Amino acid sequence: MDVFIEPIGRLINQFSKLPGVGKKTAQRYAYKIINMSEAEAKEFAESVINCKRRVKYCKVCGNFTEEEVCDVCQRRSSSVICVVEEPKDIIAIEKLHEYKGVYHVLHGALNPAGGVSFRDLRINELVSRIDGSVQEVIIATNSDVEGNATAAYLANVLKPLGVKVTRPAQGMSVGGELEYTDEVTLSRALSERKSI
Amino acid sequence: MDVFIEPIGRLINQFSKLPGVGKKTAQRYAYKIINMSEAEAKEFAESVINCKRRVKYCKVCGNFTEEEVCDVCQRRSSSVICVVEEPKDIIAIEKLHEYKGVYHVLHGALNPAGGVSFRDLRINELVSRIDGSVQEVIIATNSDVEGNATAAYLANVLKPLGVKVTRPAQGMSVGGELEYTDEVTLSRALSERKSI
Repeated sequence: MDVFIEPIGRLINQFSKLPGVGKKTAQRYAYKIINMSEAEAKEFAESVINCKRRVKYCKVCGNFTEEEVCDVCQRRSSSVICVVEEPKDIIAIEKLHEYKGVYHVLHGALNPAGGVSFRDLRINELVSRIDGSVQEVIIATNSDVEGNATAAYLANVLKPLGVKVTRPAQGMSVGGELEYTDEVTLSRALSERKSI
Repeated sequence: MDVFIEPIGRLINQFSKLPGVGKKTAQRYAYKIINMSEAEAKEFAESVINCKRRVKYCKVCGNFTEEEVCDVCQRRSSSVICVVEEPKDIIAIEKLHEYKGVYHVLHGALNPAGGVSFRDLRINELVSRIDGSVQEVIIATNSDVEGNATAAYLANVLKPLGVKVTRPAQGMSVGGELEYTDEVTLSRALSERKSI
């Protein structure tokens, strides 16, 4: 890296820490910073610090928040809890403007090979939220191996508590073409066909 | 953007200013910052400010430097000047460890349609560097329309000053397959064939 002068090399190293960013991309980002005005660069840097300082995890659901307890947990009925792997999954669901319940973020999915056991997920915190007022837990983990394993594990833990446990439907994408639907999904969609 | 809390939304906006970064990518970057330690986030932010504050343009050649005059201009003979569009082009050439001359960064290429005229490039600064000690100017602008137009313009300006003006060779990539060489390049490579 001796072709770069020190402050540029250092910034490139920092940008390289972002997910999916290699040296070439980090270099382009660094040049962009150099070509910004001093005020713009300052604003950029300050929003990094500001975000890191102000964003915490909600004590109840584990979502990002600036308070002890997030806005969603404060405002909504907790009769339905939607369990997701990551805060970004909440964003995806909130964008629909359809779901009116609360959330629970596990911060990961079971992956014994990758060193993620049930102890690493916020499962005890979920169990402690289940009381008489909770009618349903929707387990909206990903539809991959880890997400499905996590869903199966949670169902085993939650059902004995007398709460209804559901999982989002799997099948063809709405508007999706049969020809381009992957085999596993198509097989599932056919075996779980519905009367119309 | 009301699905993101303010500090996250603000950071996503900042990351979106980087070249080629859309909302989804900016969101992933923001999550990475949130998952950093406070010290790491601070280091990240400081290297942005530090880079912007310390990096200037060399008074002579226009390359990035922390001094008034860059290291290359200070150390090397200016008998050969290699003209490039951007500082990143210097990095590419320096990585070869072959070129021993100095550089001149135009900070762009002629593009009348895009509003870049000869007045926007560091051409006067280049002309003022041409004295008896300069034997050759290599015009290493890109091999695209703008780069070629710039090279032609510079050749017209520089040749009357009695300096040798050259341009890097064009042709097939070394190790390149004929079948996959683009038509224009292949045509050029054939018409400029050399005796072996």
